[in-house]
Amino acid sequence: MFRKLLTFDEAKNALSQLELATLGTEEIPLLEAYNRILSEDAVSTLDIPPFNRSTVDGYAVKAEDTYGAEENQPVHLMVSNVVNIGEIPNVKIEKGEAAEIVTGAPIPEGVDAVVMVEDTERENDDLSVFSSVTKNENVMKKGTDLHKGETALKAGHVLGPSQIGVLAALGMAKVKVFVVPKVAVLSTGSEVTEPGKPLPPGKIYDINAYSLSTAVTESGGEPMYMGVVPDEKAKLRETLEHALANADMVITSAGVSVGPKDLLPQTVDSLGKPGLLFSGVAVKPGKPTTAASIGKKLVFSLPGHPASALLMFHLLVRPVIQRLSGRASVESASVKAVAGARMFSAKGRRTFVMVKLKRDESKRLMAEPVESGASGAITTLARADGCVEIPENQQFVDRDDEVTVVLFRSFE
Amino acid sequence: MFRKLLTFDEAKNALSQLELATLGTEEIPLLEAYNRILSEDAVSTLDIPPFNRSTVDGYAVKAEDTYGAEENQPVHLMVSNVVNIGEIPNVKIEKGEAAEIVTGAPIPEGVDAVVMVEDTERENDDLSVFSSVTKNENVMKKGTDLHKGETALKAGHVLGPSQIGVLAALGMAKVKVFVVPKVAVLSTGSEVTEPGKPLPPGKIYDINAYSLSTAVTESGGEPMYMGVVPDEKAKLRETLEHALANADMVITSAGVSVGPKDLLPQTVDSLGKPGLLFSGVAVKPGKPTTAASIGKKLVFSLPGHPASALLMFHLLVRPVIQRLSGRASVESASVKAVAGARMFSAKGRRTFVMVKLKRDESKRLMAEPVESGASGAITTLARADGCVEIPENQQFVDRDDEVTVVLFRSFE
Repeated sequence: MFRKLLTFDEAKNALSQLELATLGTEEIPLLEAYNRILSEDAVSTLDIPPFNRSTVDGYAVKAEDTYGAEENQPVHLMVSNVVNIGEIPNVKIEKGEAAEIVTGAPIPEGVDAVVMVEDTERENDDLSVFSSVTKNENVMKKGTDLHKGETALKAGHVLGPSQIGVLAALGMAKVKVFVVPKVAVLSTGSEVTEPGKPLPPGKIYDINAYSLSTAVTESGGEPMYMGVVPDEKAKLRETLEHALANADMVITSAGVSVGPKDLLPQTVDSLGKPGLLFSGVAVKPGKPTTAASIGKKLVFSLPGHPASALLMFHLLVRPVIQRLSGRASVESASVKAVAGARMFSAKGRRTFVMVKLKRDESKRLMAEPVESGASGAITTLARADGCVEIPENQQFVDRDDEVTVVLFRSFE
Repeated sequence: MFRKLLTFDEAKNALSQLELATLGTEEIPLLEAYNRILSEDAVSTLDIPPFNRSTVDGYAVKAEDTYGAEENQPVHLMVSNVVNIGEIPNVKIEKGEAAEIVTGAPIPEGVDAVVMVEDTERENDDLSVFSSVTKNENVMKKGTDLHKGETALKAGHVLGPSQIGVLAALGMAKVKVFVVPKVAVLSTGSEVTEPGKPLPPGKIYDINAYSLSTAVTESGGEPMYMGVVPDEKAKLRETLEHALANADMVITSAGVSVGPKDLLPQTVDSLGKPGLLFSGVAVKPGKPTTAASIGKKLVFSLPGHPASALLMFHLLVRPVIQRLSGRASVESASVKAVAGARMFSAKGRRTFVMVKLKRDESKRLMAEPVESGASGAITTLARADGCVEIPENQQFVDRDDEVTVVLFRSFE
C-alpha cells in the first residue's frame, strides 16, 4: 500500500495550507460565552465613558479658581451643589463655586477639574482647597476609554474574563460567536474494551477515546465519543462514514502502523477524495500518524500509544480544531525551562521528549524527562506536563541547556 | 467606621489560614469530568497491563532459541501458532517454535521474548531470525505500568485529558469529584446599568459582574450572576443576605472606598460573625479590597475599577475558590519575562503592574506595561496578559530586569 512519509515541518505545512472554513455563527448570552470565539469585530456604539466623569471623590471646580492654593494658604470656594451619581446634573457652576461629587459621577457644566476630598476642608458651604488642580485633573473625558465606532475587540478573540468585561462595557448582553466544531473520536483495536464494561481475558481498557475526547474539549471543540471499533475493515469503514456524516472532523487512534491489523491508512484513504495527506511523519514518538482530507473534512489517525497519541494531537490536531473554531491565534502555550538531564534525539526524526516540570532550590524551572519505558502509557500520561522538541539535526539537548517546553496543560 | 488595613502578605495569610471545607462529592460520567477535581484517590483494581503483552509486531520466541542469530547467520524456528489479539492464547510454545504475534497481544505460555518482524524472514512455517533477543525483550510484563492496589491519581487532581485517560485505563466510566462551589457575583453603584438594557443619561454599563462571573467559571466555580444593586443600604443588605443563603461565597465590586456611597465594608460586617477579615490591603492597585467571613462563608468586596477588581480576584479570590473546589494545588500560572520598561512601585505598597507579553526579535518574552490611564478600564482589560509584582521594599523594576509575570490567561 502507498504510504506517504513527511517530515514534521512538511506535515505541519500540509495541514496549515488546507483551507478550513469555520462552521457558521450563533448568538449566545454573554454570560455563557466563556472560552467561545468572537465571530465579528465588537465595535462600540457609544462613547465610553459616555460623559465627562470624575475619577475621585471630592469637589468639581473651575481649575483656575484653585490656582495658588497651598497647604498654608487655602483658596475658599462656595459649595453650591451636589452632583448625584447616575444622573446628568442639571446645573451650571459659576466662578467661585464648587459642587460636591463622587467617583464616577458626571462633571457638571461650567467646571473642568475635580479637587480630591483629601485636599479640602469644609464648613457648611465654605470649602477650603489646599492644593491646586489643573484643567481636566481627575476627570475622565467622554470617549477617552473607547470612542463611538472604535473596535474594542477583533473577531477571532477567545472570550475570557477580560474580553467578556469589555463586551459588557459596550452594553452587549449577547454576543455572536463561531459554532463549535464537532469532532468524532473513536478507538480501534480488537483488544480494547470500553471503560465501565467487564474486562475479558486478553483485553485492556481503552484510554485514547477518553483522553482525546477531553483534549478536543480543551481545544475548543465538542467531542462526539464513538467508543471502540474492532479491527474489521467493514465495521471500521461503516463507523468512519457515520462519523464523517455527523461530525466536522474525525480522530481515530491505533491501527496505523504496518502490522496486519493496521487497517487505518488504507481504509481512510478509500473514503473519498483527495484522500491521504500523509501516512507517516518523521517524528519520535508518533511516526505512524496519518491524516486524510475527505471532501472538506479531516480524518486524523493517531498512534495507539496513549502518550504518543496525545502528543500528536497536541502538535498537529489541536491547531486544526482551533482554526475550525475561528480562533485568530493557534500557537500552543510554551515556557522556557532548563533541561534536567541530557535528552537524545532519534536520528533524522524530530524528537519530542516528554517532561515533567518542577522548580529546583533556586526556583529555576526544570524540565525532567519522564521515563516512558516500553509502553508505560499511564505513568507517562499521569506525569508529563509537556514536551521538549529536539530538531532533526541536533543529536541531543544537554543537561542545563535552555529548552522550550510545549505545555500539555497549564503548569502551576 | 473601623477599617482593618493589612499588608498583602497578611491578607493572603488571613485567607490561607481559614478552614475552608469542600462542598461534598458527586459521581459523574468520566467523559464529562473535564476540569473537575478528583475527590478520592483513584486506586487500580487491576494489574495494567493485565497480562504479559507484546510491544511490537513479530514472533514470540524463547529468547535462548535466538542466541547467536546474526544478519548473515540466521537462526531457524518453526512458526507453530498465531496469537490473536484480544484473547488469551490457549497454547504452549515449545523449544524451537515461534508464534506470530502483533503489538498488544498476550505472550503465550512457554516463550519470554518477541522478535520484531523487521528482524525476520518467513517462508511458510520456516522463520529466519536475524537478530537475537534477550529475555523479556519487547515484552511488557503484567502490572508494570500499574499494579493492582497502586494509586494512579491522588484526590485533589484537576482532570485534564491525561488524567481522564489514566482513569479510563482503570476501567472507570464514572468518577467521584467534588461539588463545584457556587459563587454569587454582584456589582454595586447607582450609576451602573446592566448590559442589554437602554443606557440612561449619566450612567455606564456594568463590567464587573460579567468579568468576575467569567473569572469564577475559569477558576472552577459556578457563578450565580446577581446583576447590579444600587447604593442603598437596605437593598444591598437584602441582596447580600439572599446571596449568602443561596451561594457558597459572594463577590461584590465597587462601593469599598471611603466615599459617602461606599457602603460595602460596614454592610458586609453587619451580616454576621466573625465579620471583617480586612477592609483594605496595602497594594496598588486594589487598596480598598475587603473580605469578611460570615458564618462559614466568605464575602469579597473588590474595587470598582474593572482591571483592579480582576487583578484582586486573581491574587486573593481565585485561590480560595480553588481550595473550596478541592484542588490540591492552587498556585497561579506564571512565566519569567524581561521588563520592557522601567516600572515603579507605590511607596510601602505591594505594586502590581499590568503588562502585555510579547516576543521581541530575539524571541525574548517581554513584559510591556499597559498604560491604564486614570480609569482606562477597557483598554487595560483588553490588553493585559498578566501583572508584574514589585515588593514593598523595592523602588522599581528596571528595563531588561528579569521579572515574574502572574498570568491572567494562558499566553499563546
